[in-house]
Amino acid sequence: MRIGELSRRTGVSVPTVKYYVREGLLPAGRLSSPNQASYDASHERRLRLIRALMDVGGLSVAGIRDVLDAVDDAERPVHKVLGEAADRLAARRTGEPDAEWESARDTVAELVGRRGWRVGPAGPQTEALVGALAALRRVGHEGFEMLLDDYADAAERIAEADLGYVARNSKRDALVESAVVGTVLGDAILSALRRLAHVDASARAFGEAQGGADRDGAPGGEGAAEGE
Amino acid sequence: MRIGELSRRTGVSVPTVKYYVREGLLPAGRLSSPNQASYDASHERRLRLIRALMDVGGLSVAGIRDVLDAVDDAERPVHKVLGEAADRLAARRTGEPDAEWESARDTVAELVGRRGWRVGPAGPQTEALVGALAALRRVGHEGFEMLLDDYADAAERIAEADLGYVARNSKRDALVESAVVGTVLGDAILSALRRLAHVDASARAFGEAQGGADRDGAPGGEGAAEGE
Repeated sequence: MRIGELSRRTGVSVPTVKYYVREGLLPAGRLSSPNQASYDASHERRLRLIRALMDVGGLSVAGIRDVLDAVDDAERPVHKVLGEAADRLAARRTGEPDAEWESARDTVAELVGRRGWRVGPAGPQTEALVGALAALRRVGHEGFEMLLDDYADAAERIAEADLGYVARNSKRDALVESAVVGTVLGDAILSALRRLAHVDASARAFGEAQGGADRDGAPGGEGAAEGE
Repeated sequence: MRIGELSRRTGVSVPTVKYYVREGLLPAGRLSSPNQASYDASHERRLRLIRALMDVGGLSVAGIRDVLDAVDDAERPVHKVLGEAADRLAARRTGEPDAEWESARDTVAELVGRRGWRVGPAGPQTEALVGALAALRRVGHEGFEMLLDDYADAAERIAEADLGYVARNSKRDALVESAVVGTVLGDAILSALRRLAHVDASARAFGEAQGGADRDGAPGGEGAAEGE
């Protein structure tokens, strides 16, 4: 198909498609004449993947290029590609090590040992967790750490479900792509579900006596007494 | 304390502190002389909160101002403040409704009904979930939706733990602040834990025969048999 058709099918403008080709995110089309390139279903699929990583995952062009490089390198064993993709998807760093950071690092090392996780002490994922726990400590919420094993229980169950989904793919390309998609979009899904569950739990705990979720158009009784 | 001391204690530069005051994130100091303002522990605490929301939560200055406005409005009932803070923390929108979006909306409505969640059909949290599921469909991964109830189970357990933590605070200010901190930093913690659990699960499923987590420097048993 021509670039106009590719644009129409994906909702990505022609100049943006050309930009992605220049930035190395999307392979160039096959030249069918000196001034015309031809694109196929693989371009369409890759373009949709780029938009998903960008729009829902919030990744930058550079971040997407890193992840796609790992996906496209057919030489690397699957386990390493998954690990590298995960590393490149890791959250941003949070400043220089300080006392809170050192203390959070110990907490994470204990957690990893307690759970028996086969992860190293210094990867980007570990650092992201240490950074978040250090930030909690800096705002006086180190008590939140008492929830860590509840969170880890949930993370293990989700990771197991994720892996079941990913491992259904027998072809390497499909497996790696589904891992990347699942990691990025799964984060967005989990975050949204957690907040919906918060709204529900908060409505039950702090809401009006009969169905407190009225702010969002849910059934909420009129004249209900304030609960707490 | 003077602004220099506040800067030293929080690691935020003096010009940045002044910028936060101008942007309405941080209350101005009390004028102790025409050219000198005095800051107290409440400023220090608020400044640490701003940095946590920004550095770990990835919120913009405008986003932080919105959240802090909800926190600071003592008139509103707690349930409403928590709901509004959650709305303002919602993920970004993802384009115009299309066939995938409509279909994802139906999936979410069914999920909410099935779980009995007291949430409305049209809040920002619901939209964030619909957007993420629509993105999955656009990249051909609608099969991922079979994991939705596993994710929802985990989200409910986490939300219950979160609420237990938040509800320990009897004072309104502390309660609302801990909800905001827990929502934002909890997302970062959960995301990092999920990825660590991925690395662990992937090492077990796809790793080399002797402890596949070597890329991260984890202890890998020599000559250990692959478990499957």
